[in-house]
Amino acid sequence: MKNQITNALSDFFFEYETPRQVLVRNRRVGVVCRLIQLGVLAYIIGWVFIYEKGYQSTDTAVSSVFTKMKGVGYTNVSGSERVWDVADYVFPPQGDSSFVVMTNYIITEGQKMGTCPELKGKHNCKSNADCEGGSFKRTGHGQMTGVCVESTKTCEVLAWCPVEDDHDIPDPPLLMSAENYTLFIKNSVTFPLFGVTRSNLVEGIDADYIGKCLHDPKKAPLCPIFRLGDIVKLSGFSFETIAKVGGAIGIVVDWTCNLDVDVKHCKPQYNFHGLYGNPDETDKARASVGYNFRYAKHYMENGTQKRTLLKVFGIRFDIIVQSLARKFDIIPTLTAIGSGVGIFGVATVVCDLVLLYLLPKREFYKNMKFKYTDTHAQK
Amino acid sequence: MKNQITNALSDFFFEYETPRQVLVRNRRVGVVCRLIQLGVLAYIIGWVFIYEKGYQSTDTAVSSVFTKMKGVGYTNVSGSERVWDVADYVFPPQGDSSFVVMTNYIITEGQKMGTCPELKGKHNCKSNADCEGGSFKRTGHGQMTGVCVESTKTCEVLAWCPVEDDHDIPDPPLLMSAENYTLFIKNSVTFPLFGVTRSNLVEGIDADYIGKCLHDPKKAPLCPIFRLGDIVKLSGFSFETIAKVGGAIGIVVDWTCNLDVDVKHCKPQYNFHGLYGNPDETDKARASVGYNFRYAKHYMENGTQKRTLLKVFGIRFDIIVQSLARKFDIIPTLTAIGSGVGIFGVATVVCDLVLLYLLPKREFYKNMKFKYTDTHAQK
Amino acid sequence: MKNQITNALSDFFFEYETPRQVLVRNRRVGVVCRLIQLGVLAYIIGWVFIYEKGYQSTDTAVSSVFTKMKGVGYTNVSGSERVWDVADYVFPPQGDSSFVVMTNYIITEGQKMGTCPELKGKHNCKSNADCEGGSFKRTGHGQMTGVCVESTKTCEVLAWCPVEDDHDIPDPPLLMSAENYTLFIKNSVTFPLFGVTRSNLVEGIDADYIGKCLHDPKKAPLCPIFRLGDIVKLSGFSFETIAKVGGAIGIVVDWTCNLDVDVKHCKPQYNFHGLYGNPDETDKARASVGYNFRYAKHYMENGTQKRTLLKVFGIRFDIIVQSLARKFDIIPTLTAIGSGVGIFGVATVVCDLVLLYLLPKREFYKNMKFKYTDTHAQK
Repeated sequence: MKNQITNALSDFFFEYETPRQVLVRNRRVGVVCRLIQLGVLAYIIGWVFIYEKGYQSTDTAVSSVFTKMKGVGYTNVSGSERVWDVADYVFPPQGDSSFVVMTNYIITEGQKMGTCPELKGKHNCKSNADCEGGSFKRTGHGQMTGVCVESTKTCEVLAWCPVEDDHDIPDPPLLMSAENYTLFIKNSVTFPLFGVTRSNLVEGIDADYIGKCLHDPKKAPLCPIFRLGDIVKLSGFSFETIAKVGGAIGIVVDWTCNLDVDVKHCKPQYNFHGLYGNPDETDKARASVGYNFRYAKHYMENGTQKRTLLKVFGIRFDIIVQSLARKFDIIPTLTAIGSGVGIFGVATVVCDLVLLYLLPKREFYKNMKFKYTDTHAQK
Repeated sequence: MKNQITNALSDFFFEYETPRQVLVRNRRVGVVCRLIQLGVLAYIIGWVFIYEKGYQSTDTAVSSVFTKMKGVGYTNVSGSERVWDVADYVFPPQGDSSFVVMTNYIITEGQKMGTCPELKGKHNCKSNADCEGGSFKRTGHGQMTGVCVESTKTCEVLAWCPVEDDHDIPDPPLLMSAENYTLFIKNSVTFPLFGVTRSNLVEGIDADYIGKCLHDPKKAPLCPIFRLGDIVKLSGFSFETIAKVGGAIGIVVDWTCNLDVDVKHCKPQYNFHGLYGNPDETDKARASVGYNFRYAKHYMENGTQKRTLLKVFGIRFDIIVQSLARKFDIIPTLTAIGSGVGIFGVATVVCDLVLLYLLPKREFYKNMKFKYTDTHAQK
Repeated sequence: MKNQITNALSDFFFEYETPRQVLVRNRRVGVVCRLIQLGVLAYIIGWVFIYEKGYQSTDTAVSSVFTKMKGVGYTNVSGSERVWDVADYVFPPQGDSSFVVMTNYIITEGQKMGTCPELKGKHNCKSNADCEGGSFKRTGHGQMTGVCVESTKTCEVLAWCPVEDDHDIPDPPLLMSAENYTLFIKNSVTFPLFGVTRSNLVEGIDADYIGKCLHDPKKAPLCPIFRLGDIVKLSGFSFETIAKVGGAIGIVVDWTCNLDVDVKHCKPQYNFHGLYGNPDETDKARASVGYNFRYAKHYMENGTQKRTLLKVFGIRFDIIVQSLARKFDIIPTLTAIGSGVGIFGVATVVCDLVLLYLLPKREFYKNMKFKYTDTHAQK
């Protein structure tokens, strides 16, 4: 018994099976098949391996972004001068990856809770019957009291009074000076699969350089300090348009890294594009142009709660980190090779079909290739 | 020499190898093997290619979301009427993809820095010894002064006074009118691999339509305007419950796109589900039901810094963009074919095992299939 | 005709082709080839299947995070005591996944719009000519009026006055007590491909447990309540350093789940690491150490708009959810098997090369393996 197993094992180890093959010496078949095989080989080596880098596995990063604006704005509205600093024009203040820079605004000062007539236009009324007390209108500012105000011919509402009149958007935008603000982006990415962490302050981007550089796609592609006017221009907008009604711009930080080469070649690329409200888009996208939101500053005056309402038009920046790292990995390599061999098999099947069904001497080749287990087919 | 290479090359190009095969004419083996092969073929074509679309490569999107709330709320607390507009009830105000809509609150007005007794309950004391001066209690409101206040029998603290009493949550919630607020979602996605950008304002969703539509899963599945009450209902909550203690709801914008067909069929789908505090979940999830945070409005009164503290109960909405685009790609196609051929090879191995080890005539087949290089095995 | 088709079909179904093979009985070739084949087999089974779990498909999660801070801070600046509660030191207040905890600050109280001299240092001037009226300096606080103030020898600016002097950062940090604040993290993840939703309040983490636990990597790895001092220590910082100038810490919630086993084994792991400003990093990263932002509280005093400006130094926490779920799937399984068979084919090709080109008896083996369709090669 033990002997038998030893024998079987030695048989197994000392034997080797290799398929018997027919070597068909036929120019036509030979050339066609070799070309098919070479094509498959070229595809596997050239396309899968070299072009698509099929020998690498891929990973996307987890990332963290911090932003900081610099710059001072100045407005002069009917003689009243004021400046706007970072604490005034950035929302939210804490340096998120998505934030809004105010470029225009409609201010309604000294609002307090009370009753006042609605704006003219959408809320016109002829009599009290048009203003159902206790109800709301979708675009209204408050709860209707049931009174139609004589002087304005609009419904009276319980609201923050006086109600905001946002019919006329200041033009030119009040904070055109926002064009010269600068944005500093700090971004770190980690590719967990490969254990690689990179910051956008790569080699050579030190405190000295940051202190004086300004991003330029050609001259300073790695400088993480961006002029707002440049960003807007690079994303295809006119600053004056977007500053007036607002808009949204995506700043894509693109980390496409081949980690088979030195990690210092893994550098970010910055791209800019409009997110919505792009004036070049088709009509449907323009359905909702602009970007604005309302923001209130509350205060007490003589024991009464009051607020200053700001309708803020601004540029919303979304820092979008897009990442793809690649590194040599044995599994995709062997999977690619293995499935390449499989495709070689397909090539062989195609050639066999030609050989056995299309050639004039097909019967001869069939006999060469096949051996039959009964006499029926050999007759 | 040159002649030799030319010869080798011509040999290589004009020759073609094809494996020699035994054609086994055996009904049982034939049927079994053909069925196995057909099964493999059906799996490759039916499952990998048609069902799982293995001929396509996939990509997820980078996305950007902007939201805008509309609607006015009204409260009447002990005769004091007021309305709440967007600037009052949305946190943060700038239209982020994650935001909170206030539905209930506990207000503590006129807090100023000073000393006052703690709340009754957790901070009871019998004598000054129970209130170690300079220390903090984990759930306390301030730093203990070391005094046990006679009248309340609680420790005195240095804190914003009077301290907030959040024991009783207003019921019914103060801002039940939040049910009728509407939410507008703007979302754009970009599939970088395929260079496709889509907005949720797809074909047919123009300004006119947006002006009057309201999302309905059946009747208006593409309308990007949502009534809060509908969202809450669709995610399986009761509005009154969630409005009282708060909760979190995920709005999933699902972009599952087959880019082999016209891009206009790439449309978003909106789904809603509770994120935490779902009353239907098991006990463990209820460990921390509700959603609330504290928010202060600061003001000066007669030179003293004061604040109004709001404990805000609200619905937190997270707009979650989930995306998967697929498009024909030669590499996954050929990988699938190649590995399919490999599985064919496995089928052949299985059939060979049957043929050579299980059939009664196995010795005969063995001799047909194998040719031996020595005489030892042929004896 | 019909007969012919039936015949062809029965031929097809009752026949079975199997390649004819040469069984080479040669110890050297046998051992080499068997070892290569065993190596391939070991690779496929051991590496692809067992180690890399190639029989599973993978999915990443969509996730939602909610955070809540607890704790009270205390400062005593030149005799003026005050406490800081959650509404004072967390930005933004609503419990986002990315937030800042204030640990130090420079306060500038009672700023109002007006003209005042700039800070000494960067804005020195000798005469009015050094202060071009109407222009801005990149690091300035406002718009220059064109006057060089005699007493300070700096340019006069229109700005929020007095301008902030942030030269000296309070040391030790004013809110060292932040070390004892606690952070509660609620996180839910959904793997859309597998339809699995998990919360970080897993089995056993109920209200009771949360009420008294404190995260510890060893003793309480699943407790979702974290002491700030612990987080900072675990990410390799000194609390005093980071509290003084600020910093950013990533809290990675790692969901690596094998869904082939019971879903209750799918538990989060918490890791902590510095994001930027890590004092251990190389020089380039230190290019921009620290984390701060400016934040203003506006108020009215005697009809004048004033503000309190806070330069907030703090720790920014980014909750980063990293997820990878794996589950058995037939497609990757068969792809792995199929491409493994392909690699077997490669092994055979290698052995054939040895057999036909390297062995002394290669001509003999060549004749055994190949059959020629003409007599030319057999001469």
